[in-house]
Parts: sequence; structure tokens; C-alpha cells
Amino acid sequence: MKRAALGGARPVLYHQSLPSASLPEWAAAAGYDGVIVDLQHGEVGLEAACGILRAVPRRNPYAYARVGSLDPAPILRLLDSGARGIVAPTVESRTQAEALVAATKYPPIGNRSLGPSRPALYPGTPGEPYTDAGNRAVSAVAQIETRTGLDRAEEIISTPGLDSVYIGPADLAVSFGLPGRGDWEDGPVREAITHLRRLTTAHGVTLGIYSGQPAYTAGLFAEGLVDYAGLGIDLVLLNRGFTDTIAGLGSARSTAGSIS
Amino acid sequence: MKRAALGGARPVLYHQSLPSASLPEWAAAAGYDGVIVDLQHGEVGLEAACGILRAVPRRNPYAYARVGSLDPAPILRLLDSGARGIVAPTVESRTQAEALVAATKYPPIGNRSLGPSRPALYPGTPGEPYTDAGNRAVSAVAQIETRTGLDRAEEIISTPGLDSVYIGPADLAVSFGLPGRGDWEDGPVREAITHLRRLTTAHGVTLGIYSGQPAYTAGLFAEGLVDYAGLGIDLVLLNRGFTDTIAGLGSARSTAGSIS
Amino acid sequence: MKRAALGGARPVLYHQSLPSASLPEWAAAAGYDGVIVDLQHGEVGLEAACGILRAVPRRNPYAYARVGSLDPAPILRLLDSGARGIVAPTVESRTQAEALVAATKYPPIGNRSLGPSRPALYPGTPGEPYTDAGNRAVSAVAQIETRTGLDRAEEIISTPGLDSVYIGPADLAVSFGLPGRGDWEDGPVREAITHLRRLTTAHGVTLGIYSGQPAYTAGLFAEGLVDYAGLGIDLVLLNRGFTDTIAGLGSARSTAGSIS
Amino acid sequence: MKRAALGGARPVLYHQSLPSASLPEWAAAAGYDGVIVDLQHGEVGLEAACGILRAVPRRNPYAYARVGSLDPAPILRLLDSGARGIVAPTVESRTQAEALVAATKYPPIGNRSLGPSRPALYPGTPGEPYTDAGNRAVSAVAQIETRTGLDRAEEIISTPGLDSVYIGPADLAVSFGLPGRGDWEDGPVREAITHLRRLTTAHGVTLGIYSGQPAYTAGLFAEGLVDYAGLGIDLVLLNRGFTDTIAGLGSARSTAGSIS
Amino acid sequence: MKRAALGGARPVLYHQSLPSASLPEWAAAAGYDGVIVDLQHGEVGLEAACGILRAVPRRNPYAYARVGSLDPAPILRLLDSGARGIVAPTVESRTQAEALVAATKYPPIGNRSLGPSRPALYPGTPGEPYTDAGNRAVSAVAQIETRTGLDRAEEIISTPGLDSVYIGPADLAVSFGLPGRGDWEDGPVREAITHLRRLTTAHGVTLGIYSGQPAYTAGLFAEGLVDYAGLGIDLVLLNRGFTDTIAGLGSARSTAGSIS
Amino acid sequence: MKRAALGGARPVLYHQSLPSASLPEWAAAAGYDGVIVDLQHGEVGLEAACGILRAVPRRNPYAYARVGSLDPAPILRLLDSGARGIVAPTVESRTQAEALVAATKYPPIGNRSLGPSRPALYPGTPGEPYTDAGNRAVSAVAQIETRTGLDRAEEIISTPGLDSVYIGPADLAVSFGLPGRGDWEDGPVREAITHLRRLTTAHGVTLGIYSGQPAYTAGLFAEGLVDYAGLGIDLVLLNRGFTDTIAGLGSARSTAGSIS
Ligand SMILES: [Mg+2]
Ligand SMILES: [Mg+2]
Ligand SMILES: [Mg+2]
Ligand SMILES: [Mg+2]
Ligand SMILES: [Mg+2]
Ligand SMILES: [Mg+2]
Repeated sequence: MKRAALGGARPVLYHQSLPSASLPEWAAAAGYDGVIVDLQHGEVGLEAACGILRAVPRRNPYAYARVGSLDPAPILRLLDSGARGIVAPTVESRTQAEALVAATKYPPIGNRSLGPSRPALYPGTPGEPYTDAGNRAVSAVAQIETRTGLDRAEEIISTPGLDSVYIGPADLAVSFGLPGRGDWEDGPVREAITHLRRLTTAHGVTLGIYSGQPAYTAGLFAEGLVDYAGLGIDLVLLNRGFTDTIAGLGSARSTAGSIS
Repeated sequence: MKRAALGGARPVLYHQSLPSASLPEWAAAAGYDGVIVDLQHGEVGLEAACGILRAVPRRNPYAYARVGSLDPAPILRLLDSGARGIVAPTVESRTQAEALVAATKYPPIGNRSLGPSRPALYPGTPGEPYTDAGNRAVSAVAQIETRTGLDRAEEIISTPGLDSVYIGPADLAVSFGLPGRGDWEDGPVREAITHLRRLTTAHGVTLGIYSGQPAYTAGLFAEGLVDYAGLGIDLVLLNRGFTDTIAGLGSARSTAGSIS
Repeated sequence: MKRAALGGARPVLYHQSLPSASLPEWAAAAGYDGVIVDLQHGEVGLEAACGILRAVPRRNPYAYARVGSLDPAPILRLLDSGARGIVAPTVESRTQAEALVAATKYPPIGNRSLGPSRPALYPGTPGEPYTDAGNRAVSAVAQIETRTGLDRAEEIISTPGLDSVYIGPADLAVSFGLPGRGDWEDGPVREAITHLRRLTTAHGVTLGIYSGQPAYTAGLFAEGLVDYAGLGIDLVLLNRGFTDTIAGLGSARSTAGSIS
Repeated sequence: MKRAALGGARPVLYHQSLPSASLPEWAAAAGYDGVIVDLQHGEVGLEAACGILRAVPRRNPYAYARVGSLDPAPILRLLDSGARGIVAPTVESRTQAEALVAATKYPPIGNRSLGPSRPALYPGTPGEPYTDAGNRAVSAVAQIETRTGLDRAEEIISTPGLDSVYIGPADLAVSFGLPGRGDWEDGPVREAITHLRRLTTAHGVTLGIYSGQPAYTAGLFAEGLVDYAGLGIDLVLLNRGFTDTIAGLGSARSTAGSIS
Repeated sequence: MKRAALGGARPVLYHQSLPSASLPEWAAAAGYDGVIVDLQHGEVGLEAACGILRAVPRRNPYAYARVGSLDPAPILRLLDSGARGIVAPTVESRTQAEALVAATKYPPIGNRSLGPSRPALYPGTPGEPYTDAGNRAVSAVAQIETRTGLDRAEEIISTPGLDSVYIGPADLAVSFGLPGRGDWEDGPVREAITHLRRLTTAHGVTLGIYSGQPAYTAGLFAEGLVDYAGLGIDLVLLNRGFTDTIAGLGSARSTAGSIS
Repeated sequence: MKRAALGGARPVLYHQSLPSASLPEWAAAAGYDGVIVDLQHGEVGLEAACGILRAVPRRNPYAYARVGSLDPAPILRLLDSGARGIVAPTVESRTQAEALVAATKYPPIGNRSLGPSRPALYPGTPGEPYTDAGNRAVSAVAQIETRTGLDRAEEIISTPGLDSVYIGPADLAVSFGLPGRGDWEDGPVREAITHLRRLTTAHGVTLGIYSGQPAYTAGLFAEGLVDYAGLGIDLVLLNRGFTDTIAGLGSARSTAGSIS
């Protein structure tokens, strides 16, 4: 997200992979600032994503969507449905970063075309063109989550119109030949965080990261390493609840059959 | 569920209110025996419910659906999609119990009509009519969750073809003028459990109950008060995960905005 | 269907249980006159059914839908989407037949309410009220498919506003304790056909029947026992194609695994 | 499919173009080994395809999906929903084959990213990384179905990580200026089969082909020309059923109207 | 709607028959107070209706839904999705009015059951039970739109827990044998308005009416005959736009073909 | 659209952004020749678009769809569902125009693959290959709506197999730094129209334009500047209806609350 959208705070968003329109309200009630609706992994298709975004109040600036590729067609519809930021996975080149900006920003920054967006989504200031207000309201976020992306981080980060970098630590670990887990205290993923912090600060874009651990996230915040965080995936949180609940039965557990 | 379906054990099912086809597999991996897909409350419509039931392996006997009323139309489609039990909410009379049986059982027990069910869903034994095998495979479950239902428990429980009673403790509490919570150690809801245990045993039907607390459920099992349990609702478990995660951030929490 | 809709011919319709919008056109190309979209059995929900009906040209008078119960809500939406007839399953009383007529006919015959139907669906004649044209265009069809229905056939058939009776031979057989098959040359199902032929002729309503066998249907037509027929279910026809195709492989068949 | 997936046999799959979740079970009951869910042609969209794949038991290794293009976004979701193979249409270059592998395989072979797949979909062996097990479980299949694809067959077939080639004989015929039919005993399509058999054997990848005729398929199996087959399209089989049924009416056919 | 919900004003709602989640925001921008999502007529099914209701901000008290029948199943899901009022069509008896109240109100007024509603939908006052707050927040609205309903108006209006009557003037006209139009200055429909105004005032419930004409509505408001209005149907307004636009082409109109 | 499709007239189509299957019939009743179903902006997803196209009679040659990008996957399904033309947004190069032709035309013009289209969609003349009839029936339409597209107009327009150019005046204005409105009497957008008229005439392709004003469109027709027009967007027409209706209330307007 762009610096102005931080609002002087450290927003925390969850990843939504379940096609439920009610989760954003419940997450907000629990204290979340916003959501990254995930179209790359999970069960949320384009129509469900548009519905979920419409269930988020228009004034909430943290209604994000992660797309599965740089195809501009779904990006346009997500933006028209109220997405305030588009997260592109696995960005590995300047060309890809430019394609993201082209799809998410109106001219002269990109080439997003005009269409009937949610009314007053981008109120702007008096006299300001609608397209300028739109460009201020929407963030273009590139995920860096591979060694290749890391190697080309500066050409990506310096792309005009790019607002933020979002680190995918598990995929980044896999690309280093490490296990696909997310919360690294050292090693190449941790070094990548520090490196990207420096680069993003230098180029005036913000930095976010996904984590499944609140304590780990708090640590990154305390060290000033990231500006915002994706914290938790709905399905993972629910699975933990399933497991804990069954564990709570103790010896009363008496397996009768199995869904699997 | 009918006694034969217990398999000599105490099956534990979760309530599914989210329209996700992946949850049954994850719940099974976590140790659940089955699912009650909820069409009464939550976001699961009829088409989603049919899809969820089809994602449960055919041999799993604990694929249940709770309907929102006694309209036979959705019941038929749920059964054809693989539901092994239908839970009817708020049954308060013999007439309603009979309507449930009529919709869920083939003649001569009920008047479910023939249609193309999932192949081999009811394999039966050699020579046995398909309709008899179907009647053995499918359970008719009446929820008793109001004072009126409790008062008429015996006329309900003695309905020919009824297989089980499922207690809704929160709604039952509300009907007694108590708060709408579920896990009662004493008072009228607790007395209702004991009363229904006696009646169901006398009439040869099984007894289940919803609970949100594994320890409470384990206690009921230990006392032999119920035969099976609904334990946990997906949305409630997920909300707990949301809340715990945000709490885990501690002082790093810095509210930027709000979805609400 | 009402006598005027027969057009002096013997219309043949297929039963559609698959949620495909393309089947009506293919069936028409194969020679079918129309379709009975089935909401009682199979995978066609209300939204899919409305879409299928809209894919049938407005001038085709044989776009029928079978509902799963007498709830008027889906009936209204099916009619507004272009259904030219509603088939109600398992009608067993005058009250049920009247409920069918009430839901499908405008006043003064029934109490269908006004709403935005497909334009010019009921063109009517100059000066004729829209509601009268609508009542002429839409047929109310009661399925008789149980012994009870048969016993009360005359009270059902004489219901004002009822246009046709449709025999469900498989369910009728089951209600007689016979196997659930459809094409009977003798026995109580055959006798029921003859009986219903007499009664419907006497009361001026038409008679149709479901069959899976064209030769059997041709025989009924030749004897003048029915006016129109449901002939074949998409899923059954497709399954026959699956089976024949695998059989055609002969010894080349080499089972590697199994979906089941 | 990869050689290990053949299981020493000649798997036979059908093409599914109808958005029905029940077909895989019926096809398996009829003897099919698996399914190619078709997102390129027909009525199956991404959400329907994911639902159909989830209705196939997890242990079935022949749950395939054909996509309409090389956009990685739908490929990821299909894999997460349980697809065990992705068929890419009209592959005509090494670059396209590499894109297919990149989207379907985890690092180091491709760059598929981690996400919540169906639990235990890729059980692997003890100690094996999840990504390796995933790469063993999923096949990348390139369709060669144009003259251009045929001319560049070797560069396509030798792509690291590619598991199989699937011949589209009708499109191949059209690209030779021949009629768009599929079962060729001689001419350029037949020569292409022989040629691709040699090339795929040389490079250790398997070869499959679509056919609508079981006898033709049996012949190819007998000659060892292909390892597996797509045999029949649901819609085509159903249309044959429609046509045969109407023909079976003979002179009883009395056209009343027409859907078309 | 209940008197408290009027807020001292005369709310104006539109009828939504198109399955679009964006219309409520556009209508609000145009000055509408709220919406009646129509499940009786048009193309809005239950899932679409729930999505539309979730796209209306939680604090808006005029998010209404009209159901197609008194089946409590869809009513429950609409309420859980945020509906603040349920409009039941063609209420003609005390029994029907009581069924409406039973489905929409928690005990002790009705028997709506507890379920996970949109968070904080019914904030209530400190100490107040959630069920009481829910009952204050939700309105039960009976449509009177037939002669029978009119004849039994007092038994309907005096039903405990009923909040409002909504006149359907076109259906009411048809039941009097008049044409199915809506805006009557005299005759039996006009007399019905006056009669119902007296009765509703006497029993402390509010009165609304549908109209397609703003001037007519303004007149009813000026005379104090109704408390709120449904004003315009989306599809009708759009059709008017279609017609006016084509008319604006004048002689440039040159028909090439036709969709019809 | 191709010249032959004009039928010697000036077809007028509307843009459909609402996911309603009933609009094409209503628009036709109002005098429209056809529709451009919009997948780029609005709420129409791929499945809805396919359903809308199937609700248009097969013989109507003006069933168009605008896609959001040049990804061939949705184009194929739209064509199979009955689209008679594909409008590609923001074409800016010969390569893009060629990709559009490749996706929409069968060999030898493009590389559209064979699949089960709506039966008899392209009847052709006796003896003519199906693929040739298909290519005659379907139009490839490139939108020119940016300065870059205008600069490269001739290389785009001269692409073999391209049938038409469609001007997007609002986006074109934005690309010139002008406000995003559509109906220009002078300035660079007007000059672009004249320029594109000359180029398209020279290369034998047709020219269309979007406009929201019938009088403006009539003017362009009178001057022979365009061959056909997109005239009006459903959502915009509906919003105008909302606004006019509220305005018609005058002083009776009494704001109670607000949806927004
Ligand atoms: Mg990632
Ligand atoms: Mg309950
Ligand atoms: Mg039947
Ligand atoms: Mg092909
Ligand atoms: Mg009405
Ligand atoms: Mg444009």
C-alpha cells in the first residue's frame, strides 16, 4: 500500500481464501484493519472476490486483492468492485512490475480504462480529475518471493507508479531450497527482508510481509522492518481451531469413521 | 443418526456455515468424523451444500445437512447429492416429525421419490431392494430446541421412521427465557438432556447435541447422556482464531483503519 | 399441457437433470419438441433452471419445469423466466392440485401475482387482458405417481384450472410394492394408465407419461393412451453412452485405476 | 500423464464439457479410469471445474483439467482443487511448453507457488519435501494439434518437466486443410501419431490421443501407438442418445413444435 | 417498517429485481433511502439477495427483502445477511401474518432461531438481550394486495409483532377485475388505501405502498395516506431508458435485425 | 462487425454491464438491434456472459461480447456460447490485433479450435466447411481508444481477418489529457473519428463508436462517419432513472437515512 494509506499506523490484514462474504466484518470486529482477498490460492474466484469486496465499506482503504497472474481483465473488475490495492504474485522483472502499474493506474501513470466504479469510491478533492483521485486511492503492490525477484529487486522497486512490495516468505524460502515455512529469524529470507527494507525506503515505497505468527510480526514492526503485515490465513486459522477442538476431547475421542 | 450408523463409537461432527468445498477434508484430517452442512444459518445455499456433500467420500456415513424448513424440495436434492442424514430444525409436533420422515425415506416408510442418486450410494445387500438400502443408509433427525418441542417430545420421538433427536441447547435456553448460550451444567436445558436421554433410549432412537466446548462434550459422553455430538461451528472457530491472532500482536497493534 | 398446446400432435419432451444451458438446443436439433427441466431430482437448482428456460426460444410452448414441492416462490420465478408449464410431483389431493393452480394461474383462476415476465411471452389477442393470455399460455400439470394419488384421481383431475396429468410410472410402481422401473405392459401401473386415460378424457384434461423406452412410448401413442410423453433423462442417456463406449473397447480395456 | 501414473495399464478418460459434479462418479461406475475436465470448450467454468475435481476421490490419479490458455492463474486453482494433470491446448513452441511446466511444477522444476491444497493430496514418502511429492503427483501435458506444433514437436517434447503429449486429431486435421474429424486411419494425422510415438518414446514422455470411437482407440492401443486415451465427450455421447431415442419412436414421431 | 424506523421522515425505497450488487450504492447516491430486494419477481435468487444485502452498509435500516412465500428457510438466511425487514407477499389471513412474525422475530414474539448474523447488526442498548435488540431492528411487513386480504385486513393488522402493511396496488386492482396498473386516484384501490390508513393507524402499525410515479407518491405523502413508499423497479426504469434512447435517434433509426 | 453483418442498415447495440439474462429481450422490445455484453467493466463475469448470450436467439447476428484482455480462454467460451463478435479493448499494436484474429477465427485465418458450439450457429451454405461458415459469422473488433492505438491505426486496421474498429471516445479523451467524456463535436477525439473513418473505408473494415447520446449518434450516422453504434450502458440508463424519479418527488422528498 502507498505511504499515505498507512495513516501513520501499521495496518494488519488477513488473507482470505474462503469464498465467504461475511468474513471481512467478523475480522474487523476482531481488530483487523483490512483484508487481502486471495484469487491465487484457495477457493475465491473472481465473482466471489467482487462480492467480498463489495461487502467491505467503501471508506475502508485496506480492501486488497491478490490476483493469480498479471492478466488485466480480472484486475479491472476487482478495482471496479472496490479493491483499494492489487497484489501481484511472484514479480520477477521490471516488465512485470510495469504491467501491474499499467493495469491498476489510470493515465498518465498506467492505462486502466474508465468504467462504472462503486460511486464515490475515489472522492478526490474539488476540481481534481477523477482519474487522479483514483490513482491516489489505489495501490499497486508487487510480491517479491523468489530469488530471481530478489536479484532484480531494484529494477522492480523503482518502477514508476509502484507503491509497495509485499514479501512472500514461504515461496522465497522454497526458491532458496529451504522448507516452505514463513517466519524466519535468520538465513536468506531474513536477509532479504533487511535488504528489501533498505531498497524500498530508498525508493519511497512501502514494505509489507506475510506471517502466520503475531509475535514474529510484532518483532518486525518493532525493528521497523516492515510497514504493514498480512497476518494469518482464514483456512489455516480455522484448521487450527479444528485441531484444537478435537484435541480438547481427550480420551472421549472415539473415532467412528472418517470423512477422508 | 440411526444406531447402526454409530458404529459402536461416538461420532463427532462440525457445523459448516461457510460455503467452502474444502472444509470437510481438512476437518477429517483434524480428526472429525463428519459434518453437518448448515442451510438454516450462515452462508451455505442449496447449490453450495450439494457441492460440499459431493466433496465428501461416498463411504463416509456422517455427511449430514440441516435444512431451514420442512419443504421437501431441498431435502430431495441434498439426499441425491449424498447426504446421509437430514437434520430438521425446531421440530415441535408429530406432524412435523412425520413430514421429515416422509421426505427422507422411500416407501413404505416415507414417500421420497426415486431419482438418480450418487451411484452405489446405498449398496445394500444382494437381493435387497434399492429403496430398502436407501432407507437404511439415511437418517432422519429431529431437532428439539424449544419448550414446545420438549413438551411434545414423546409424540415426536415415537414417530415411525425417525432415527434420532438432536438437541439445540442455545435455542432451547432462549425459549426458557435464558441467555442464548449452549453449554449448561444445570437448569432446564440440562434437565432436558436427561429427559430426552431417557425418552430416546426407551424408543430406540439415538440422541445428539450441539456444543461449542470439547470438555463439556466429553462430559456428556462420559455420562452416557448423548450418542454423538455436533462440536464447533466453522465460523466461530475462525473468529476465535482472528481474535487470538490480533491479541498476539500485543502492543504492536496500531489500528490504522477499520473494515467495519 | 393443455389440449390447445398439443397442436394436433404428440409432443415429446426430455427430462433435464444436468445444469447445462446448451442441452435444449441440442435436443431440439435431435428432434425433441421440448424439455421438462427437473428441479426435483438431479443437479438443476432454481437459478440454473431459470437460465435454461431463458435459453429456450420464447415461441416454444414446451418449456416445462418440474418443481420439488408446491412452494409458490420458485414457481413464480420459473414462470417469469419463461416456463410454459409447471409439473408438480406426487399430487395426492384436491388441496394440492388447487395449490398448483393457484400458483400458476392469474386471477380469477388462481392467484399468481403480476411481475416482469419475459416480454411478449403471452402475446394474447388484441384487447385481451394480459392475465387471460398468460393463463392460456401456461399449463398446470399434476403428477399422479402414488396409490394415494390414484385413489383420489378424480378429485385431482376435476380441479378447475388444472390442464394435465403426468404419470410417474416408477414411483407408482414403488408405491405398489413393485420394483422402481418405468415401462409396464401389465399390472397395476398399466391399469392405472388406462384408468387415468378414461378420467382425463372425461374431464377434458390431457394425459402424459414418462418413459425411458421409445418403443414403449410409441405403443402408448398408437393405443391413444397418452397425449404426450417425457422420453428419456439426460443423465440416463449419457450413462448409457459411457457404458457402451467402454464396452466398445473390448479386450483393449485395461483398468489402471478408478475414479470411484 | 507421466509414465509412473500409467500404473502398467492404458488409462481411459472422458472429456467433460457439462458443468455437472455427478458425472465423474457415473463414468467411473461405467468403467472409466478418469476425466479431463474441459475449460477450453463447453460450459465448464473455473468454479465448476474446481467443484468437479473435488468430487473426484483424492486417490484417483486421473483427475485432469484442460485449460483454455497458459494463464497460470486458473492452473493454480485447479491444482489446489485436486487436479492431477493439466492439459494445455495447442502448444506450438518450447516457450509455451516451458510456461506450462512453470505453472504446474514446484521449484526447482517450475515456479508453482505454495498454497493450501487438498490435504494429503501428495502424501510423498517419509522425509520427502512436499514440493517434490507434488511434482511427482502432477503431470504437465502439452497438446500437439497443429502443423506448427508438429513441426516443433521435438523442442516441445524435450522440455524438462514435461510429462506427456496429447494429440488433438480434429484440430490437427483442420490445420492440414482436412475436415475436422478425429479418427484417421491414414494421411497426415495418422503419420503424426506415428511420428509423435517415436519422439515421445525417445524422450521418455508418454503419449495420449483423443478419439470418439472405442474401436479406433483399441486399435491404437493394440499397435502400441498411444499410452492412454481420451475417449468420448459427454455432450457428444448425450446427443447420440437424444438422436437414437427420437429415432426409436419411428412413425410415432409427430412433431408438434420445436425448441429451436 | 416499524414506526421507530421511520426516523420522523418518509423513507423511499426502490424495488430491485436485477441480480446486481452495485445498485444499492448507486440508488443511495441518487437519493434513495433504501431497497426492497425482490425474491418474488425478477432475477434475484436467494444467494444473490444475500450478497446484495451485504453490500448495503450495516447501519442502513432500510435494507428490505420481499420473499416469494412464507417458507421460513430463506427468511432466516436473509435476516442473517442483514435484512432489516421482510416483506411477505399476498398475506390473506391471520395465520399467514403469524407465520411471518414467527419467522422474523426472536422469542418471545416469534421463533426465529439464533445464528451468526452480521456482527453488531443489532447493537442494542447495554444490558439488553441480543434477541430483544434483534426484534427492535427487524420489521415484519405484510403485503395486502387482494380482495381477500383486504376483507381480512383487521385480523392481519392486529397480529402481535406485525410492524407494517405494504399495499400492492397492481395485484389489488387485478383481484378487483381491473387492469394491472398501480397508480389509482379513485375506485376500489384508492378506497383500500384510505381504509388501510385508518386501520393501521388504529393498530399502531405503519403503512407503505408501491408506486411507479413520483408525483402520485408525493400526493399520498401530502395527504398523509402512507408513511413510506416503494418507488420504482430497477427493470422498469431501465426499460424506460432503453425506449427513450431509441426514440432519441429519430429518423436515424435503421433497423438491421432484432434480438427478439 | 463485418460489412455483411450490417445488412444495409446501421445497427444500434447497448452495452450490458449488469448480470441479467432478461435485458437482451427487453432491449430488443425497445428497438435495439443487439448487445455488447461487457466483461471488461461492470458485474458480468464469464459464466453470466455465456448465459446472457444463450438468451439471445441464435439468428440474431448482433450478440457481441467485450473481453477484458486478449487471453484466448474466455474468447473461446464466449464464441461457443453464441457470441457473433468479440470486441477487444485498447488495441495498440499489430501484434494485439493479430492475437484477436487468432483467437476468434478458425484456420486458415486464425487458430480458433473446434468445439461444440451452439447447434447450427453457423449454418453456412451447402458444401461449405463449418470453419469457413464460422469465420463468416463471427466478427473481430478492435477498440482504438488511446493515442498509441491511434498512432498505429493503419497497422491495426490492415490486419488480415480484422473486421471492424470500435472507438472508445472517453478513454481516448483521457489519453489526450481531456476529461473522460464521450460525445465530442471537435478536438482530437472528433478528428480521430474522421481519421479512422478514412482508414477503415480504405481497408474495407467497418467503424463503430460508443456514445451515450442518441442525438450525437444520429449526427455521426447522418455524416456517414460510423457504420454502427454502441448507444447507452444499462447501468447509466438505470441511474438516470433513479435520479429522475427522486427528482420527481420534489418537496415530498424527506430523507430518512441513507444506504451509502
Ligand atoms: Mg506466494
Ligand atoms: Mg437452533
Ligand atoms: Mg416421481
Ligand atoms: Mg483441440
Ligand atoms: Mg404483488
Ligand atoms: Mg474503454
